[in-house]
Parts: sequence; structure tokens; C-alpha cells
Amino acid sequence: MSETGQQNAAAAAAAAAGEEKSKKALNRELKKQQKEEKKKAFKQPGDGQQKPQQPKEEIVTSGENFGKLTLNQSQERPGRTFTRVADLNPSLEGQEVLLFARVHVSRAQGNKLVFISLRDALSTVQAVLLMSDFITKSMLKFAAGITKESIVEVKGKVVKTTAPIESCTQKDVEIAVLSLFIVSEALHLPLQIEDLARPTEVFERQRQDVAAIEQKLQDLSLSEEVKKGLEEDKSKANKFAEVLQDTRLNNRVLDLRVPANQAIFKLQSAVGMLFREYLLNKNFIEIHSPKMISSASESGASVFKLGYFDTHAYLAQSPQFYKQMAICADMERVFEIGPVFRAENSLTHRHLTEFVGLDIEMAFREHYHEVLDELDNLMTSIFEGLEKRFAKEIESVKAQYGFEPFKYTRPSPRFTFDQAAAMLKAIGEEVVDNDISTAQEKKLGKIIKESHGVDFYIIDKFYATARPFYTMRDPANPLLANAYDLFMRGEEICSGAQRIHDAKMLEENAISHGINVASIQDYIDAFKYGASPHAGGGVGLERVVMLYLGIGNIRKTSMFPRDPKRLTP
Amino acid sequence: MSETGQQNAAAAAAAAAGEEKSKKALNRELKKQQKEEKKKAFKQPGDGQQKPQQPKEEIVTSGENFGKLTLNQSQERPGRTFTRVADLNPSLEGQEVLLFARVHVSRAQGNKLVFISLRDALSTVQAVLLMSDFITKSMLKFAAGITKESIVEVKGKVVKTTAPIESCTQKDVEIAVLSLFIVSEALHLPLQIEDLARPTEVFERQRQDVAAIEQKLQDLSLSEEVKKGLEEDKSKANKFAEVLQDTRLNNRVLDLRVPANQAIFKLQSAVGMLFREYLLNKNFIEIHSPKMISSASESGASVFKLGYFDTHAYLAQSPQFYKQMAICADMERVFEIGPVFRAENSLTHRHLTEFVGLDIEMAFREHYHEVLDELDNLMTSIFEGLEKRFAKEIESVKAQYGFEPFKYTRPSPRFTFDQAAAMLKAIGEEVVDNDISTAQEKKLGKIIKESHGVDFYIIDKFYATARPFYTMRDPANPLLANAYDLFMRGEEICSGAQRIHDAKMLEENAISHGINVASIQDYIDAFKYGASPHAGGGVGLERVVMLYLGIGNIRKTSMFPRDPKRLTP
Repeated sequence: MSETGQQNAAAAAAAAAGEEKSKKALNRELKKQQKEEKKKAFKQPGDGQQKPQQPKEEIVTSGENFGKLTLNQSQERPGRTFTRVADLNPSLEGQEVLLFARVHVSRAQGNKLVFISLRDALSTVQAVLLMSDFITKSMLKFAAGITKESIVEVKGKVVKTTAPIESCTQKDVEIAVLSLFIVSEALHLPLQIEDLARPTEVFERQRQDVAAIEQKLQDLSLSEEVKKGLEEDKSKANKFAEVLQDTRLNNRVLDLRVPANQAIFKLQSAVGMLFREYLLNKNFIEIHSPKMISSASESGASVFKLGYFDTHAYLAQSPQFYKQMAICADMERVFEIGPVFRAENSLTHRHLTEFVGLDIEMAFREHYHEVLDELDNLMTSIFEGLEKRFAKEIESVKAQYGFEPFKYTRPSPRFTFDQAAAMLKAIGEEVVDNDISTAQEKKLGKIIKESHGVDFYIIDKFYATARPFYTMRDPANPLLANAYDLFMRGEEICSGAQRIHDAKMLEENAISHGINVASIQDYIDAFKYGASPHAGGGVGLERVVMLYLGIGNIRKTSMFPRDPKRLTP
Repeated sequence: MSETGQQNAAAAAAAAAGEEKSKKALNRELKKQQKEEKKKAFKQPGDGQQKPQQPKEEIVTSGENFGKLTLNQSQERPGRTFTRVADLNPSLEGQEVLLFARVHVSRAQGNKLVFISLRDALSTVQAVLLMSDFITKSMLKFAAGITKESIVEVKGKVVKTTAPIESCTQKDVEIAVLSLFIVSEALHLPLQIEDLARPTEVFERQRQDVAAIEQKLQDLSLSEEVKKGLEEDKSKANKFAEVLQDTRLNNRVLDLRVPANQAIFKLQSAVGMLFREYLLNKNFIEIHSPKMISSASESGASVFKLGYFDTHAYLAQSPQFYKQMAICADMERVFEIGPVFRAENSLTHRHLTEFVGLDIEMAFREHYHEVLDELDNLMTSIFEGLEKRFAKEIESVKAQYGFEPFKYTRPSPRFTFDQAAAMLKAIGEEVVDNDISTAQEKKLGKIIKESHGVDFYIIDKFYATARPFYTMRDPANPLLANAYDLFMRGEEICSGAQRIHDAKMLEENAISHGINVASIQDYIDAFKYGASPHAGGGVGLERVVMLYLGIGNIRKTSMFPRDPKRLTP
């Protein structure tokens, strides 16, 4: 973590202590002295509502205005007001505030000054302890010794900074500490938050630097001395070790504290909120379908099996059958947000064995495009909502991961499968069995980004062979289905279709797909007593967040991801 | 279903057809004749955008303005506007509307008049077909023969009724049919919607009537003739067979079409919406925790086990550990809405093996009552929201089930466990092992309803022995815990507490509870690197809806319920 920007406070401290003079102009020094005087005017804190604890076995210094608080068992409720770090701003200048935050970094400068960077979710602020009547030597020692990630209660005065503090998100203000108590002390960390938070860009630059040096080292004519110099440069360039994905996940609670991750899960929450907001406004109702089911859902493969009293059950691979049954039960327009389970033994950047499905199903009157239009509008409303209401979180993710802003139009471009296949053929890609491969999807995404300038688009009219038995065929061409996929940055995030709403056709199709009709009898029966034409789709929440943010691994957008090799934490 | 209220239209029809004269005053007849003239002025419908299908093997009459539509495979999208039955009102008088609805009942009166009750979710409207130039004999026959629950597209004119139609929810308007097409034909029903929708009150009255007759039959001095008469009365009184819960659930898709059930699931959706609305406004974020976990969650009992590739996993009994880990990861305030799995082999009115948990967890600064206050305010906000925004749905449920309106105050009354136990002792109930039984909870609910006039209240400071190992103890009395339950109508709907946020204390408590610490190491480790004091709770969605509506069985508020004996549909 950079420590520039702490210089003004440090200089002020040096001036006050009569140490080596700052090189800045006199008027600046004057200002600082005035500030010091203000600081001296601070009253000794003495609300003493929670007495510091002085454990016998630990060598923890404590005093009236510092120490370790007794474990909070809700002893008292004085009703004090706490200020969030994010809410600190220059208008609070001179006011006393109470903060509740983590010690991000604590650093002594000389023996009269300690800087603590306090972190609270996405925000950090610099707290300064300068020796004075009430900031004692013991207190400074105590402050400098607080372990990183400990949670503290800090009382202090808001001070406007004379130069922006580059190392904190709160650049215009800092906190002149009056009291400092530990609420919860952290053990020494297995991983440093700074390492977890380091921008991927740093590693990219590092890789480039190292590669450039290695390139130079290829030169056989180099003298031993030059070689040695280059080897030293190389090891210097290679200064940061990247924390591997698995290590991050093994220490997920620490990893999640990183601002980019705080933001990712705020954005995940936002996508859910925007999804529901849109649909509730359109008279959808939210349903909850069972996850334990008696037969292997829509496809026999890739299903988790569990014991269920004297029998067994399966975990639902999607709410497909149930949301359709809700339509048959006149719910008309339904959505569900819930876990979806897939026992696929594939370790890819975009598969999880458990993910959150955002599902919709909707009766229509004339044409399934009524539903596809809603899906399109729903997704672009989500993108718009993120952009407009969560810019700060998007910036936080960008600061670590860096990505191209997500582009879309309203409505989105829509292509038939045949049109998409033609675009691929035009660049020499062969589409086999009327199915576009994952690699080809990526290429298609690039073509469409270039031609239409968007990261979001729809492909309609897939071939029936590529779709499940309950998919309605195109009325004009029975090889095609009324089926569509939605794509973000060249990856599928939603698959959907018009469904068969005729029990007889559904049963025939199930049989022709080799499905045991008896095992899905309840589902088929649901269509026997009058059913509306309907269509729907299922969106993967983690994929939407991953692709919106251009992050390359779905494990980064699942709070506690599950894959064939990971079941903890 | 009552057929009163159809009389005005029927009379109109009779008048027009020159049949038996209505007994009403002449001016009323005149009005009807004018209406008839209006009707005759209707143009023959001829948009013909979807041609009727005339299958060879079926004897289905069809014509220009009636018949069975071809299966909708999204052939066309003419973009016609449909009107919801709920939106029909007298201001639309004379206008032509297009409806998409179910045939609730179809009934011929004489051979020139057919009444169809059209149902669309909670609403019904009467459609009238009276023989005319374009309402042919064939069309009337076709209309009268449509099976119940078939979905139809009806074009017609809105006509104000002269007397309210008691058999429909739309009492002030009816539809003079111009065209009638079947979209999806229902097979003959295994259960009648009327039977499924019959008010419980009817059965209560029936039971009383039967009991009264049986009482009379006890009289040994009765003559054989009187006895016979009473037996006949009894069998007459016993006219409605109640559809059993299991039969309902076996035919859930039909059962759900009943207006009260439509309303119940609209209200379930509403509770979720109000829950989130409140929490998002209070800066909570929504999280999604894994449901497949590596060890048996917080308690070893009652857990479902599944195969997980080469190993096995369990289904989460609650998101407890994960929501706490989110707090340790600085999420500060989190909620989750998701399935919760309990392998408890108990068949009661309030247990399911899978239900929807509404969970919250929140860091606090001083006292866990900060969280309890939020929980209280959250719940009463939900009650208020239901009352204010979903009165129509509440009425629909009431019409079938009948219940006392739910009473609450803001804030809610709050009692300690000891106070609650004392209230029970005062009525002679003995509280054993510092634990209140389910039956005693019910009694307590009645006491509090009488004394405080509310159906919602909180009990705080349960004994530690009754709570899980991760519960924080009361600082003043270690026998007590900082733990609370929320109650609705004498039944628990939420259990919560301050949690232990100190890794060492947590580990010690786990050990003293006989828990294998290694199996929950990730959870315990989460508290080692600084953790905020926090508290939370888990609310059962189905229980909230059940108890708010005073419905006696949780299977009625779960769309597709799961219990030890039910895994389908």
C-alpha cells in the first residue's frame, strides 16, 4: 500500500515535535501549527462507558483512552452514534466522530507519531496519533502494535487534509485520534489483504517486465557481469507473488474483505434486486419450488442423489418443471431465485456444481417473442441499473481487475441461429451438427462486438436437436425450435424457449427422447386441464456478474463456490 | 356456485326470445330490449387472424366466430390487446374487449342462451351468448359443451348489468360474446374447482347441522317415520364432501387455481418482497450461501446426506454458519432467502422437510437489541405492507378460510422468558427445564392476545441450555442467553440470538457441546481475524404466511410441499 499522502500529517507531526524542518513554504507550516493547536485543544476522552480490560496474561498496555474492550456480550446500550468511514467528508471538519472499523495498516513514524489506516467495507481513512498530553507513549506503542484486521472503536476529530491522502479512499479528511479501543483482536494473518487486493494490472506489468528481461538474457554475447545484473533486475521485477485462486478460496473470509470483492457481492445483490424490481413491476410473482424432487428432473445426467427417509430423492437441476406447473396453475407470470444443482464433473472457468438460478416463466397470448422481449428488456434494465446506481462498486472492481465497460443497446441485436452460423462461416468457422461450440460462441461475441458495438445480444431459433424434449418447434420449419439464448461478452447467460403446452405432444416428445414418462407423470398431467402457451428462461446469477465485470472466473462471483473439487469452506 | 345474478341477463334473453315474460316492471323490460338492440348491432367478428382448426376425428362444431384454435406455436403476432378480467368495469360499457381466460362454468339455459363464467386468476366475469344472426345454434352448442378449465379467447362487448351478478367477482359488468375460441381444451377434471374452493365455513355449518340431527336421533322415543325423516335430513345436510389435504396436494396444479390459493401465493411473494424492500432500505445486502456443505451444519441430527462425486455432502439446515462468515467478511448486514432442509421425521401441521428461510445477520455496535429492534420493525413492516397493499388477496383467502384479522403494535410487546414462564404459571402451567412446550406456546399466545391485544410479540432471554453452542450468554446471568424468538398467533416464526464472535469462546463452547471441532474448522477460523459483535435470526416464510392468514396447515402455504411422506408432485 502506497504511503504517499500521509506526508502532510507526518510533516505536521515533525514540525510540532521540533524535529527536522519540512521543506515546504512557511505559510504551509503555519497552517500545520494552527492545526496542531487545534489538536492540543482536544479534550481527553472520558465517556468511559465500556471499561478497558487488562488481561493478566497479555502484555497489553491500556489507559483511560486506549486498550482492549471487554468481549461484547451486550452489557450496555448507551446509544452512541457511529459514523461510517464512507460518510466522512470535509463538511464534518472539527467534529468529533466515533468510528467502528478494521485496522487496515498501522505504522509508527519515529516514536511520536502513528498512522492507522482504518477500513470499513470499500472505504479507508487515515487516523493519526501524535504524542500529546493524552496521546501517551504507551498509547502510541499500543496503537502501533495493533494487529492488522483487528476491529477498533476510534473516537477522533475530523481534520481536513492539506494534500490528498493517496493511500486512502477518503483523501480529503483524516482523523485526529482521541481514543482507540480494540473490539476484536485479529491473530496474525495467513494472507495479507494488500496481496489479495493487488490489481491484476500490477501482475500483468510484472510479467511483461520479467519477460522483457528474459528476452535480454537470451543474448548469448552478454558478459557475466551484465547477466548477473539482469538476473538481479529480474528478481526485483518479480516482487509480488500472486495469490492463487485456491488459496484465496481456502481463506475466503479474508479474501472477501478486499474492496473489489466487497463490491462484487454488493453488485450480485444488486442484480437480484434489479431482476425482482423489474419483474414485480410487470406483475410477476415470486415462487419457491422444491429442490428435493422424486425423479431426475429434466435430464437424467448430472444429478445429485440423496437419501430421503426410506427412499431417495434428487436435487433439482432447475425449477423448469415447477415453474411451468405454476403457469398451468394460473400464476401467469412467475420468477424464482434459488439454487440450482448440477453434478457435472467439469472444472471450467464458468461451471459450478451449485449456482443461483434467476428463472422466469410467462404465459403469452400470441407469440413467444412477447416473452423474449421481456427477457431482453429485463437484462438491459439490469445493466442500466448497475451503471446508474452502483457506479462506485463497479469502480472498485475495476480498480483491481480492470475491464472494458459493458456495452448494450435497447433493444438488443437479435440474430437467428442460421444468421449466427453464417457469421461464423464467414470467418472460416465450420458449424457442426447445427450446434455452435463454446469456443465459437466466444468468436461470435467478438464479431458482434465489432459489427454492432455490443456485449449483449440474443440468438433465436436454435435447432430442435440441441434443445430439451419440452421445447416447442417452429411452426414453419420443424427442424427449428422456438428457442433462444442470451449472451454476454460471447458467453451464454440464459437459455430459454417456448415450451410445449399440449399434454399429448409433450408425452410423445418425451417418449421419442427416451424419457420414462411415468417418472414425469405429474409434470405431463399438469397440461391436461387447460394450459396457456408460455415461454421462459433461466439466467445464471454468477455468470451475469462475472461477464458484466469481465472477470475470468465464476468462482470470483460465487461467495462460497462449489465445484467437483471444492465443498469447503 | 350460486347462479343468482344471472337472472337479469337471462331475463333479457328470455324477453328477446319471446319466451315466458319477466315479472319485472315494464320500464325494466324496455331497458333490456334496448340492450338487445344494442347486441344485435354487434358486428360479426371477422379478424380471422388465427384460423379455427377442425380436427377430423373429433365432433367439434366450428364456424367463423367459434371453434378450436390451432395449437399455438407462435405462428403469428398480430399484437392484439387483451383485457384482464380484473380490469373490466362499467366505464368500459359498450367497448369491445378481448379476454383470455378459463371456462369456470358453462351452462345453457333453454336452447337460445348460454352463460359462461370466465375466470382469470382471482376474478370471474359472466359471458353471455344469446342466439342471434351470428350466435348460431351450433355456436351455442359448442359454447355449452366446452369443458371446465379450458382456456378460451373471447371477444365481446362490455355490458353494464342492471342487477349485480352474485356468482362472479365482476358484478357490475358482463360480456356479450361476439366470438369464442378454445386455446387449450381441458380433459374432464378429477376434482371440481368449486369443491376445492368451497369455504371451510360451509363445512363447519354442515358439521353442526349433521351433529344437531344426530343429537335428535339419540332420542329413543322417536317413531320410525320421524327417524327416517331425520336420516334423510342428515344425508341432505351432508351434501358436500370435503376434499382432503392429500387429494388436494396430489392434484396441486388444479388446487392452486382456486382463488384463495392464487391469493396465498401472491401473498407469499409479497412477504418476500416486503422483507427485501425493508432490508435493502436499511443497507443490507442479499447473499447466497451454498446448500451443499461438507459437514452436518450446526447440528448433527436431521440432516440429508447426498453423494458428491467421490465423497458425500449434506444439505444445509440453515445458512447460519455462512451468514456469520459473511459478517466476518465485512458484509456488515446480510440477508438470504433460500431453501432450508430438515430431515426431521415429524408429520405436524407446521413442519416441512424443505422450507424457505428468510435469514438475516447483522453486525451491531453496542447491544444485540439493535438487531432485535430491526427484526421487530421488519416484521411489523411486513404486516403493515400486506394490510395496505394486498387487501384484495387477504379478502380472497378470508372468503374461503375465514380468519381473525392479524393484530400487532409497533413496537411489539416484548417479554423475557422468565416473564413468559410466570404468565404460564399464573394459569397453572408448569414450565419444565426452562423450556416452553409447543402447547404452552399456544396458551401463551392466547394470554398475550387477551392482555395486550396482539398476535405478534417477542420473547427474549431464553435459557442457554435451550440454544445452540454459538449463542452468546447474558453478561449478568450465565444461565441465560442473548437469545429471542418471535411469535405469531402463539407459534414461533423466528429464532435468533447474539452469536459468539470470539474464536476461542466459540471453540470451547463447541467442545463442551460435544461437537467435532475439526468438522467446523472453517467456521471457527472465520472469527480469528477480527469479528464484529453480531446477531440475527431466521424466519420461516411458509409459517409467516400460514399464521398471518390463520390457516391451520403449512402445506397450504408451500406451493409444492415436502414432508417425510411427500416428495411429489
